[in-house]
Amino acid sequence: MKRINRLINHIISRINVNLKPMGLDIEQVLKSTIKPDQLTKYYAYYALSIDHPLYFKFQESNLGGSYFLGKCDVDRSIIYLSDIRGDELKTEGTIARYGDVGTELYQDEIIQIINSFLIKTLVHNYSRNPEIPEYFRILNTVAMYYANIHGTTTEGVYLGAFSTVDLSVMHNCIVGNYSYVQAGDLSTVCIDPGRVWIKADWKYEFNYRYPTATLEEYVSWDEEGELTGLFADFVGERRSDFLPMYDSLAFESPVPVPETAFLSRYAVVKGDCVINDNCLVAQRAYIEESFLGSGSNAQENSFIVNSECSALVVVAHGGKMVHSIIGEKVFIGFNSFLYGTADKKVSVGSGSIIMPHTIIHADEPITIPDDTLVWGHVRTQKDLKIQSMSFNDFSKEEAISLGNMTFKGNGKTFIHDFQNRIEHILVDNGARYDGQKSSRGHAQRTKSVSYNLFRPYLAGEKEGLFPTIIVED
Amino acid sequence: MKRINRLINHIISRINVNLKPMGLDIEQVLKSTIKPDQLTKYYAYYALSIDHPLYFKFQESNLGGSYFLGKCDVDRSIIYLSDIRGDELKTEGTIARYGDVGTELYQDEIIQIINSFLIKTLVHNYSRNPEIPEYFRILNTVAMYYANIHGTTTEGVYLGAFSTVDLSVMHNCIVGNYSYVQAGDLSTVCIDPGRVWIKADWKYEFNYRYPTATLEEYVSWDEEGELTGLFADFVGERRSDFLPMYDSLAFESPVPVPETAFLSRYAVVKGDCVINDNCLVAQRAYIEESFLGSGSNAQENSFIVNSECSALVVVAHGGKMVHSIIGEKVFIGFNSFLYGTADKKVSVGSGSIIMPHTIIHADEPITIPDDTLVWGHVRTQKDLKIQSMSFNDFSKEEAISLGNMTFKGNGKTFIHDFQNRIEHILVDNGARYDGQKSSRGHAQRTKSVSYNLFRPYLAGEKEGLFPTIIVED
Repeated sequence: MKRINRLINHIISRINVNLKPMGLDIEQVLKSTIKPDQLTKYYAYYALSIDHPLYFKFQESNLGGSYFLGKCDVDRSIIYLSDIRGDELKTEGTIARYGDVGTELYQDEIIQIINSFLIKTLVHNYSRNPEIPEYFRILNTVAMYYANIHGTTTEGVYLGAFSTVDLSVMHNCIVGNYSYVQAGDLSTVCIDPGRVWIKADWKYEFNYRYPTATLEEYVSWDEEGELTGLFADFVGERRSDFLPMYDSLAFESPVPVPETAFLSRYAVVKGDCVINDNCLVAQRAYIEESFLGSGSNAQENSFIVNSECSALVVVAHGGKMVHSIIGEKVFIGFNSFLYGTADKKVSVGSGSIIMPHTIIHADEPITIPDDTLVWGHVRTQKDLKIQSMSFNDFSKEEAISLGNMTFKGNGKTFIHDFQNRIEHILVDNGARYDGQKSSRGHAQRTKSVSYNLFRPYLAGEKEGLFPTIIVED
Repeated sequence: MKRINRLINHIISRINVNLKPMGLDIEQVLKSTIKPDQLTKYYAYYALSIDHPLYFKFQESNLGGSYFLGKCDVDRSIIYLSDIRGDELKTEGTIARYGDVGTELYQDEIIQIINSFLIKTLVHNYSRNPEIPEYFRILNTVAMYYANIHGTTTEGVYLGAFSTVDLSVMHNCIVGNYSYVQAGDLSTVCIDPGRVWIKADWKYEFNYRYPTATLEEYVSWDEEGELTGLFADFVGERRSDFLPMYDSLAFESPVPVPETAFLSRYAVVKGDCVINDNCLVAQRAYIEESFLGSGSNAQENSFIVNSECSALVVVAHGGKMVHSIIGEKVFIGFNSFLYGTADKKVSVGSGSIIMPHTIIHADEPITIPDDTLVWGHVRTQKDLKIQSMSFNDFSKEEAISLGNMTFKGNGKTFIHDFQNRIEHILVDNGARYDGQKSSRGHAQRTKSVSYNLFRPYLAGEKEGLFPTIIVED
């Protein structure tokens, strides 16, 4: 495994030259996280689809267990059990707009991952970086367990476990565990663990911060550098359900799937589940004893257990719910955690927005009214008083300070931007499909996908390294 | 499937411009044999090994269900359920000898398949063509079910079902069903079905011809262009045993396999089987209720059912045996068929050579003594009188005419060349492995192989076509 060890050292050195000046030495973290003997275990998957431009190249890398779709170029990186989903990349000729200025793409956008280490990470959407609109670049970056890199270029960035960087441009940043950042252009910034930070220049800024002790119940590291806490336990308990489907090339859907819906053959569907028209259930989603109403979607790393989703519910990447009743057109943000039990259900009213990285961990039945914005850490109905507001109330405000949350700017615009985005997600995912070609989305487009499977060398000094592979149209 | 249909027409036209002048129009044959809707069903497999130079490129092709090892380049071809095994290709710097003249290879040899259609075909060994020693070329060629292309370049060639071309160079040739040809350099030649022809200039020439009616019991075409006869029935009955292993990525050997032996995860092992030291069981081999002695090998498309093989038995590509007892160091030639029953066993004495394309179809128990050369179509012990000879007797002869067989030349050299070749096969396959690195062969070298799996587009005008894929070291 000489070459893999050299690759690990290469990645460490490239990240350290960028982040050590900011006080982070990645060596210990990477050496305890990367288990070289695990790197030969899994296939990488490249999805072949007629609906997405095709180009895939990787060299000097390990991609064990990762899934790729769309144009990707991977060089000197380890991408382990991750999802690189390039189905929203910009295409040649598109006018990329940055404020008032636009420029035309001279070629299809490509996800480029260089000198990086990603583990159980989701990469999705497209780059907002005006530097080279043709590249969605992830350079010299470490993304730990269940991080989401969503429309964010990262150059010299450390992402903690269950963190999300969303619609941003990041350069030399450190993002703590379970932080959510959507803040435009960030350089040499250090984001505390458990901070939820949404900032749009001249419009608004939202901030929430989890108390450290609270956060550590959910996400933490033990002395050996292993991920611990309720989140890790929750996903760990369900890991074995994913294994059999990776051993099989055949696929028979365990439940009926309507013609207009999509169920990934790499999603878990357990027990009695219903998937309705225009639903999208992505790879690595997990559905158990649950109902998905028309147009609802379960994105990567989402878990829907003993729950009911009405129509048009968006469960974003990493969103989780147990014993929850979800109204129509509710948004369950990235890595949110709705954790009810049979006698303490979580009910969310129609139109409501569960903000990214919200934890609703029910000590009693929790009921959230329609059209409510929810954030933070909710355990009782009373907690909602300082961790939710009706859209109506929120829209009236220009400055809010409530518990650990502060908000400045135009509340109405904030809600409006969120709703706009949710509608975009629904359209992109095909939730609004009406039989017309123009209304097709991911659910309808990913239908006839086939998979190419790649494995690394199993012996010799290249053990664990994949060969150079190029797939072209 | 517009592009696939265009590809089929392209292949037809390229073969027809070469072979129509010889009286063969391939259009009907290819159109009834290629079922476009079957072309999306199977993965292609590329074996990654540290022991073989690595390069794999294909474009504008369908490779459904085929297996590749070593350097391969495929262009505008359909290679269906075939084995392209480039593990004996010559390497850079080797001196390729043609008679007294030698030349050094400027790069590793590569199998190049262009404008061709291969179905259930085996391609193995290396090119003997002095024109470009760096390319083992299969150009404008049709190979029908279970043909063997073994160390033979084919440029404008039609190979019938269960035919074998061996250690030759062929240019514009038609080879009938179940013909075996090993005859050096052949141009614009038409080989009758069921002819076994071995010719070495200035040394010897062996000829055998199956009676047409006899041959048609074993290999024939019906009016719809479907393969019929006992061979097709035999392999057809066992086809379903292969399917489950292609649906699974996991592999657990059904029997213990010694450290020095190799059992392909794509071989069928059914019932109580024993695999000894230094054995090689290749992909698409089939073993049922059988014993393989040390160093024995079961090559691609071989079937060993209710049989016992002593040590160092070579069952060449496509060799089949049922209820047979095989002595030490016996050679079962390409596509031979030893068909006994529980009370009518076929016994072959040590050292004997069952020539390629020999049928021993027992109407009574058949016993072949040690050191015997066997050919033709044997149903009773008496048939052996005109279809076998002891090495001793054969070695004395300069000209033989026996039943449908004729031989001219040096009998001793003929036997000697065969024995030499068998010893080479044993060494190449690792049957002589003694723990020293220099004695390693395929059985020891193919140990730590991993597979890359490719699939075609499943929809659109490219349906059935694979993308361009390049795999490099």
